[in-house]
Amino acid sequence: MGRILVINGPNLNRLGKREPEQYGLATLADLESSLGISAKGLGIDTSFFQSNHEGDIIDKLHWAQDNGVGGIIINPGAFTHYSYAVRDAIASIDIPVIEVHISNIHAREEFRHQSVMAPVTAGQIVGLGLQGYELALRALINILKERN
Amino acid sequence: MGRILVINGPNLNRLGKREPEQYGLATLADLESSLGISAKGLGIDTSFFQSNHEGDIIDKLHWAQDNGVGGIIINPGAFTHYSYAVRDAIASIDIPVIEVHISNIHAREEFRHQSVMAPVTAGQIVGLGLQGYELALRALINILKERN
Amino acid sequence: MGRILVINGPNLNRLGKREPEQYGLATLADLESSLGISAKGLGIDTSFFQSNHEGDIIDKLHWAQDNGVGGIIINPGAFTHYSYAVRDAIASIDIPVIEVHISNIHAREEFRHQSVMAPVTAGQIVGLGLQGYELALRALINILKERN
Amino acid sequence: MGRILVINGPNLNRLGKREPEQYGLATLADLESSLGISAKGLGIDTSFFQSNHEGDIIDKLHWAQDNGVGGIIINPGAFTHYSYAVRDAIASIDIPVIEVHISNIHAREEFRHQSVMAPVTAGQIVGLGLQGYELALRALINILKERN
Amino acid sequence: MGRILVINGPNLNRLGKREPEQYGLATLADLESSLGISAKGLGIDTSFFQSNHEGDIIDKLHWAQDNGVGGIIINPGAFTHYSYAVRDAIASIDIPVIEVHISNIHAREEFRHQSVMAPVTAGQIVGLGLQGYELALRALINILKERN
Amino acid sequence: MGRILVINGPNLNRLGKREPEQYGLATLADLESSLGISAKGLGIDTSFFQSNHEGDIIDKLHWAQDNGVGGIIINPGAFTHYSYAVRDAIASIDIPVIEVHISNIHAREEFRHQSVMAPVTAGQIVGLGLQGYELALRALINILKERN
Amino acid sequence: MGRILVINGPNLNRLGKREPEQYGLATLADLESSLGISAKGLGIDTSFFQSNHEGDIIDKLHWAQDNGVGGIIINPGAFTHYSYAVRDAIASIDIPVIEVHISNIHAREEFRHQSVMAPVTAGQIVGLGLQGYELALRALINILKERN
Amino acid sequence: MGRILVINGPNLNRLGKREPEQYGLATLADLESSLGISAKGLGIDTSFFQSNHEGDIIDKLHWAQDNGVGGIIINPGAFTHYSYAVRDAIASIDIPVIEVHISNIHAREEFRHQSVMAPVTAGQIVGLGLQGYELALRALINILKERN
Amino acid sequence: MGRILVINGPNLNRLGKREPEQYGLATLADLESSLGISAKGLGIDTSFFQSNHEGDIIDKLHWAQDNGVGGIIINPGAFTHYSYAVRDAIASIDIPVIEVHISNIHAREEFRHQSVMAPVTAGQIVGLGLQGYELALRALINILKERN
Amino acid sequence: MGRILVINGPNLNRLGKREPEQYGLATLADLESSLGISAKGLGIDTSFFQSNHEGDIIDKLHWAQDNGVGGIIINPGAFTHYSYAVRDAIASIDIPVIEVHISNIHAREEFRHQSVMAPVTAGQIVGLGLQGYELALRALINILKERN
Amino acid sequence: MGRILVINGPNLNRLGKREPEQYGLATLADLESSLGISAKGLGIDTSFFQSNHEGDIIDKLHWAQDNGVGGIIINPGAFTHYSYAVRDAIASIDIPVIEVHISNIHAREEFRHQSVMAPVTAGQIVGLGLQGYELALRALINILKERN
Amino acid sequence: MGRILVINGPNLNRLGKREPEQYGLATLADLESSLGISAKGLGIDTSFFQSNHEGDIIDKLHWAQDNGVGGIIINPGAFTHYSYAVRDAIASIDIPVIEVHISNIHAREEFRHQSVMAPVTAGQIVGLGLQGYELALRALINILKERN
Repeated sequence: MGRILVINGPNLNRLGKREPEQYGLATLADLESSLGISAKGLGIDTSFFQSNHEGDIIDKLHWAQDNGVGGIIINPGAFTHYSYAVRDAIASIDIPVIEVHISNIHAREEFRHQSVMAPVTAGQIVGLGLQGYELALRALINILKERN
Repeated sequence: MGRILVINGPNLNRLGKREPEQYGLATLADLESSLGISAKGLGIDTSFFQSNHEGDIIDKLHWAQDNGVGGIIINPGAFTHYSYAVRDAIASIDIPVIEVHISNIHAREEFRHQSVMAPVTAGQIVGLGLQGYELALRALINILKERN
Repeated sequence: MGRILVINGPNLNRLGKREPEQYGLATLADLESSLGISAKGLGIDTSFFQSNHEGDIIDKLHWAQDNGVGGIIINPGAFTHYSYAVRDAIASIDIPVIEVHISNIHAREEFRHQSVMAPVTAGQIVGLGLQGYELALRALINILKERN
Repeated sequence: MGRILVINGPNLNRLGKREPEQYGLATLADLESSLGISAKGLGIDTSFFQSNHEGDIIDKLHWAQDNGVGGIIINPGAFTHYSYAVRDAIASIDIPVIEVHISNIHAREEFRHQSVMAPVTAGQIVGLGLQGYELALRALINILKERN
Repeated sequence: MGRILVINGPNLNRLGKREPEQYGLATLADLESSLGISAKGLGIDTSFFQSNHEGDIIDKLHWAQDNGVGGIIINPGAFTHYSYAVRDAIASIDIPVIEVHISNIHAREEFRHQSVMAPVTAGQIVGLGLQGYELALRALINILKERN
Repeated sequence: MGRILVINGPNLNRLGKREPEQYGLATLADLESSLGISAKGLGIDTSFFQSNHEGDIIDKLHWAQDNGVGGIIINPGAFTHYSYAVRDAIASIDIPVIEVHISNIHAREEFRHQSVMAPVTAGQIVGLGLQGYELALRALINILKERN
Repeated sequence: MGRILVINGPNLNRLGKREPEQYGLATLADLESSLGISAKGLGIDTSFFQSNHEGDIIDKLHWAQDNGVGGIIINPGAFTHYSYAVRDAIASIDIPVIEVHISNIHAREEFRHQSVMAPVTAGQIVGLGLQGYELALRALINILKERN
Repeated sequence: MGRILVINGPNLNRLGKREPEQYGLATLADLESSLGISAKGLGIDTSFFQSNHEGDIIDKLHWAQDNGVGGIIINPGAFTHYSYAVRDAIASIDIPVIEVHISNIHAREEFRHQSVMAPVTAGQIVGLGLQGYELALRALINILKERN
Repeated sequence: MGRILVINGPNLNRLGKREPEQYGLATLADLESSLGISAKGLGIDTSFFQSNHEGDIIDKLHWAQDNGVGGIIINPGAFTHYSYAVRDAIASIDIPVIEVHISNIHAREEFRHQSVMAPVTAGQIVGLGLQGYELALRALINILKERN
Repeated sequence: MGRILVINGPNLNRLGKREPEQYGLATLADLESSLGISAKGLGIDTSFFQSNHEGDIIDKLHWAQDNGVGGIIINPGAFTHYSYAVRDAIASIDIPVIEVHISNIHAREEFRHQSVMAPVTAGQIVGLGLQGYELALRALINILKERN
Repeated sequence: MGRILVINGPNLNRLGKREPEQYGLATLADLESSLGISAKGLGIDTSFFQSNHEGDIIDKLHWAQDNGVGGIIINPGAFTHYSYAVRDAIASIDIPVIEVHISNIHAREEFRHQSVMAPVTAGQIVGLGLQGYELALRALINILKERN
Repeated sequence: MGRILVINGPNLNRLGKREPEQYGLATLADLESSLGISAKGLGIDTSFFQSNHEGDIIDKLHWAQDNGVGGIIINPGAFTHYSYAVRDAIASIDIPVIEVHISNIHAREEFRHQSVMAPVTAGQIVGLGLQGYELALRALINILKERN
């Protein structure tokens, strides 16, 4: 069924240190370790990747295609709202991608209401905090099961 | 912790009969029964409600507040895009609400990209098919646990 | 070939009583009786429905699908301009629908120029007064004949 | 001179229970009883109506025309911002209508700044709390006196 | 009562040869001959005119005024969306004009949703195929009868 | 409780002389004298001010703050639609301000639909003719009573 | 100094016959003859041209450049609002052009408020009736005198 | 027939000193004296007024109504683009007003393309330099002659 | 493989005479003769057509379909930005069309940035001067070779 | 090198009294006296001017040109967002002007994000509190030194 | 004359692997090798560069300026639509740049219709497939020849 | 008080080499060395950083938070207008940031008028050339002094 790759975009390396009222106290390391455990419990391997560099995220998405990744969870951070290059990278691979946002982007500034990724992802999970990643994991596994 | 109420808006009574390539073959009855079983497995009661009438949905949301409902999952159908009255009803109660859309509304017509509900719900799960309801159920239970 | 259902939306119950310079003097009853006679002359049965309730119109459209209706003429009144729920109901059934407007909505206020129904109906007849319904009747019968 | 009908739209049944910092602590029953007493003191009868159903409000406006109502005070709640059907119902009757909003809708969310009713009502009283209804009552009586 | 003039605008000379899935297989000659027969059956004469030249259509509309034309059916083709000069020509004559579109322009590209003619025509028949012309013929005759 | 100051903006000195079908026949002097009498009857003093000069109105608003004015009624005339300087003057003082418009600005030209003052005033009374000032007077007195 | 060419665009051949409350009773022939006399009195020759064909007007503008025309008065009719081809023709010649509109286009429909010609003409005379042409004549002569 | 009043708005006192490539070298005094002589030659008296103060221009317009002014030429300077108060003052008097702009405002910055005055003036003369005032003078005299 | 037809739209007959800093010094005749030689060198015949008349260009496009034209190079001039009729003509024929613009339309006025033709042409060559036509010629021949 | 003129626009006379959380506690007199001292220390004279009257500010800008002012610091208050007349006055003089805003206008209401002055000033200093004036002073002196 | 540098932006490394119906089957290596051969045939050297990193492309553009590059062909991929930083890099160097798009971006999603690069490039070749690069090569060589 | 970090974004490495009429002749090295000296004179240390890579700037902003930087001066170059990722990085750290633009971005192309950074910076200094950095330095030191 392939591994699941979890990609976090710009500024998410500061999770737990930045605006905790908005994003909570858990760090990116906490998130990744707990997600890894959940996935293992569900019998699936995970890889984690974070970058503040748009190009690195695009490279990683291409890499996924050629390295047996079965599904991708991505929180594109602020790239969500303008990076058509990341969008095209998602569209250029044959792997289901689920978009996650920790906070409710629709209840924040106007520019956060639009995701240029959304039309080419399988779905979005928004505003449900860190558990959004857990839910995306389950959803991806179901999607992969259906495909096989 | 209170029961969980699942509200489906206009045209969702035709699930399984309407545009199956968009919405799948399961009927609303199938969805409700399978959700009820999942909830029971997680130790929580559920109620189900569907209506094509905006006023009935508003009444039900008010009713929830006075009848021990702990959390709400809502798929507002086309009301998503214009019913400020349903939005106000959600905002007027103290119950966490998760918005679910079966299809990826961001990959469809322009008018479906905006949800007037989103700013007053806890979060949204979009485009993940019927399992979106299952994920919302888990998310709600976690939110309720955190609150207690 | 099935019956033809004629649906009139909000405020059309006041036809003949309201703004006669805009809508003429004939009442809804007059319109329905004369349409029924025309249809009978063309060898087809008709049903009539009027409601000021969006939900009732949606229910009726669903009902049509399960009750042998062959074609629908709808004047959605002011719902024309914002009811995506009625639009979805039209899109969810397999019955050809013709949209009728008594007055020339393109020569009135800006908000009346757009119909959210139009993209999912077969066609529109606009501004030709009550005879618009008669023309729609003929058009529907031709469409039904072609289908058979 | 006819009775005065006071119509309250969606979610106003929750007055006093919902967002008290925005709407105050008085309930709808309090408001109606105090308005009734004021009206009686000014020698005029009143009727009260509240509904979360757009269709019911349209029906009531039509009913008013045929049942000797002399003037109408309406707080359309969230229908204010999109219900062209309620607007058309107001335009279809020969009774002066005054629109009331308890809170200052111009100091709230963008979507609340526009009233689709306003062009067809006699006037608006906005942001003055529950006394807005009392002021509307006086204004209506003056308008009716001038007409007679 | 005067003759009825049928004007077809740019590219409609290619009817039956161009995009048949959109416009059908009948040619312009087929359409004109069948319309002429219908009109004759209803006791009225017809003239036909097609041009890809905006100026020729304007000239023809002026000519109609001075040559006893009683009513006009126009399918302005792509001029529909920008030719304010044709619009002004329609407005400058005292002859009722009905606008016909073979396909449902509201279900096609964005730019086809607006007709700059619509505010100055008597009405529109849209999306009903070639029978739209037949319906327009009947409507025009009724309008002319009412005038006399 | 302080005096009540009534400010009328540009062109309101021509009340009764200008467009009487829109504004009626009473002059500004009539309005001020009748408002003064009403206020006296309610036990409160009034001052009146009219100017066609934006700067004078700003100065007057500042003056009010330092001269014991308890409440302000303002009809900003056309400044309503663009004078952010008057808006800032209103926001810069601690006195409740009610905005009055004699005609129904929402039923007139598009540019009159927006008030740049509205977000910083307590409320608005629109379209009720000269009695709008009387109603504002009562509303202000109630607001001042509540404050004390 | 060269002749002055007066170009009238689409529908202006119907001057005096069309919407007289908007355009008056004088015909195009009247206008041309009276303008010719004025010009003669001021010692300058005139040519007149009217067409409903955009291409003919472009050709005429090119012709002017090669045939000793010193100045041009143009009333582009409805081409004013969309014909970038006529605009480019004006820009492609070295002859001063004055744009004339008989009616006040800024007090009519929204689409008439914009002239795509205006940025490339010397100036505009709007809303002053047929004398607008006389004024343009004087203005052109002055411009030509200044150039020489 | 009454005197003709010529009003120049903000910054026009700097004519001849400011941006000569845009406005030429003649001063306001030059303009006024030469216009006065032309008017005298046509048998009509003139008054001149310039102010940088919006309120003073409004006052002057009101004054004109009560002091036998027969026609007004106004160059509102930058007020053209936002002063709805000056617009209302023009609309509030019964005197024909012609708007003049020295430069071609349609060939300059975007914000200069719209005149909020234009819908309530008789006409506009734009881009023809100082002679625009002379042309307006002639036009006004003709309008006044027609009225008498 | 068929001949190649080169169509030049409005004002391109003035090439070499008009705004040489924008379009260079070569005339249309120069361009056509040099293109013809290039084509001959590549073993293909050419036809040339220029018109300022929208209708003539539409007619020519239709003619191409029935007269063995294999490919079309079009510079629609200002029609580029608004002529949906030419667009429809291009869409109505089965011949590959390449759109050429001599100047870089994206570095000029706002209205020149959009081409209503572009979505229905094979491609565009923009801003490369007259050699754009030469490049289009080569591209067309390649496209035609691939098709055969 | 000339004196430096510091102009403060509407409502800035209330500095220190109005919304101190936004603008601080120092009064306009404090600001002016401290700026004067700084300037003196840098060997330059200053004049100060504050007005709530747009016309007075325009007059002062003109006056500066004729009275040896070398540079201008302006905080146009709310005029920033709409006064094209003040903008034109700045553009009409040959004196470098620096625009200062005490608060960060880009972090406040939407309408405060745009400055109609900015395109014609030398530069802007925004959001740095009262020291913004001190910085502008230094910048102006440098600009003036460079010019000499 | 200098070498020609060919830059390909994000996702173009996946050419031939991604959406072949849109982009064909040739890989980036195929394209580069064939372009290199063509260039050599025309007597000119080439360099090739591909990156998914915006910063790398900017660095390369700067590098070109200092390393004897004579002309640049760029396909900016999705950066086309938002990277003002790449645009500024193009504008900051003195090398002619031609923009190439393989597919017809005007026939795809709305956001692909605008190129923020276009105003600062010499020209664009759009929709002509991989041969677009060949055509750009020829055009560049001609431009360089003209310069020398 | 911590060091001050000066960040320059894309293309600013070409300062002095690129468009000198816009940006002057001093190089980035000149700017940094002169700023360093000024800072030393004011008793504060500085670090300098320039990158054309969005991700590097984000990394540097994060680094600043953990490495004792007291204040930041940033000229984000073209990232100003679209990089929400840099904006989020600024918002995610507790260090005051001042935005500097060398040229007057409000007098240049439309897209340069908006800064997506501005709402989360302390303030902006725009259009004052390289001295803008010097002014920002002083402003930062004052802000830091106030904080301590």
